[in-house]
Amino acid sequence: MKIAIVGTGFIGQAWAIVFARAGYHVNLWDKNEKALAQAVPFIEEQLRTLAKQGLINEAADVILARIQSHKTLETALEDVDYVQENAPEILEIKKSLYSELDQATKPEAIIGSSTSSLPSSLFTEHLKNRERCLVVHPVNPPYLIPVVELCAAPWTSEHTINQTYMLMTQLKQKPIIVHHEPSGFILNRLQGALLREAFKLVEAGYVSVEEIDITIKDGLGLRWAFMGPFETIDLNAPEGVADYCKRYGAMFQQMSKEQTSTAPWSNELIQSIQQQRRQLLSADQLAEKRVWRDQKLMELIKHKQQNQ
Amino acid sequence: MKIAIVGTGFIGQAWAIVFARAGYHVNLWDKNEKALAQAVPFIEEQLRTLAKQGLINEAADVILARIQSHKTLETALEDVDYVQENAPEILEIKKSLYSELDQATKPEAIIGSSTSSLPSSLFTEHLKNRERCLVVHPVNPPYLIPVVELCAAPWTSEHTINQTYMLMTQLKQKPIIVHHEPSGFILNRLQGALLREAFKLVEAGYVSVEEIDITIKDGLGLRWAFMGPFETIDLNAPEGVADYCKRYGAMFQQMSKEQTSTAPWSNELIQSIQQQRRQLLSADQLAEKRVWRDQKLMELIKHKQQNQ
Repeated sequence: MKIAIVGTGFIGQAWAIVFARAGYHVNLWDKNEKALAQAVPFIEEQLRTLAKQGLINEAADVILARIQSHKTLETALEDVDYVQENAPEILEIKKSLYSELDQATKPEAIIGSSTSSLPSSLFTEHLKNRERCLVVHPVNPPYLIPVVELCAAPWTSEHTINQTYMLMTQLKQKPIIVHHEPSGFILNRLQGALLREAFKLVEAGYVSVEEIDITIKDGLGLRWAFMGPFETIDLNAPEGVADYCKRYGAMFQQMSKEQTSTAPWSNELIQSIQQQRRQLLSADQLAEKRVWRDQKLMELIKHKQQNQ
Repeated sequence: MKIAIVGTGFIGQAWAIVFARAGYHVNLWDKNEKALAQAVPFIEEQLRTLAKQGLINEAADVILARIQSHKTLETALEDVDYVQENAPEILEIKKSLYSELDQATKPEAIIGSSTSSLPSSLFTEHLKNRERCLVVHPVNPPYLIPVVELCAAPWTSEHTINQTYMLMTQLKQKPIIVHHEPSGFILNRLQGALLREAFKLVEAGYVSVEEIDITIKDGLGLRWAFMGPFETIDLNAPEGVADYCKRYGAMFQQMSKEQTSTAPWSNELIQSIQQQRRQLLSADQLAEKRVWRDQKLMELIKHKQQNQ
């Protein structure tokens, strides 16, 4: 099975690692020649880091040898069975790119989009073989964070969904199947609900930005790193989740009445949060902190793998 | 410094461990004689497990020797400097208990309540020395999960808040100071916002209960185990959190319009979630799974301690 990665920014590079470490041959292409030229060196760097952390089972070079850059989209798509598209989140760009993808691939090849915000029905309706298109939304970087949201358009075939589900499982990702194309899919809706409340609690002066972060990383996040929210509450009442709802449902319903704001975040609020963050971490430390974050994430993934 | 634990159910037992492992002498008392009699053996069991996991720095027996059960509230409170109250979440019980605590302790002793739902202004207003009372809300079990919510009543003194903050920090807990007594404090409001959305996504048929859990434990929860939601988004845009809001604020605002439900969870929905959970984990496996959860949590805490 051969894979094409179309769009080789951060997400495309990370996808290349996911496919190549599972043994697949991966073709890379990007409209932007510079982005394409940078992709392989960046991938190599990431593979070396993963090797150092013991997070890949083969030598970095062996995995890297499966990845090949292509100067034209046509040769990148030649004979591939699966395309992972990572173009900019601009509808017109996706539409016109999908016309090319539809024509230049064999009709049974599946085309998955990394989009985090656009339902695929908005950019695949006009295609001849639109039944093989769907959203395959990763979390960055997918070689560390396994969840992948599969979201079909109304015309996506069952075969496409099933094949993609099996492929993702085989890659060791954790696919979920999202029905009816909800805006933002699932992960960002859950994140959004919590973020909206976090912003509001800061705006109301209940706590600081730092204290919200402590509440999650030294509180809720410690459970959510290995159990979801339903598993968590299921174990938090003697008879399970229905028992939990009997005990605490009214409390959460009462709170929900204060959780209905739909106003945009005010500039004043955003500036206050930005200021609080810059006091905790200056602007020139951001890059270094991202390296720290990736390191922490790798350590945590390794920890979870060793303690399954 | 001497501590009294009033109410020796799960939370009281866990608090006893937090104080005793930091070197304090701890008096236990519970109105219910059976609960009191069970407390020390249960605490001993937990200490032995913590010792096995390498999560305490002294022998279990040494820590246990600092903990003493008392048959009367009067002797339990004698000469103590801090009381952690863990009575049932029933206003009348708390009110009358606080009258006793106020009379039987020296006036400068601080009284912290473990309540997760009642603002302390509701049960301390009538006291003579009410300025030394506040909410000190832990997450269960506090000897593993460090965040503690401190929430003052309007009449709580700054001195009380500061002393409690220092005490909690010294215990290696992570105190946050919650202003204005918001209902549900902070942790449960954040959890509630996410849970309400999770329930709605299942109700609308977008995904299953299991898929929500995957989205957190194999997605968002992997970051939130070591970074809060603000730290996370601060690092997810080149210029930090304000830049992130510029890029994604409109998306989250758009979603929020569909996140305003204040209806109670329907019985049908609760039953459907309960059924899905029982298919994944039968009722007779719940107890065993709680042991698994505690084990995972201990492993994660140890991992975080070793990788600071």
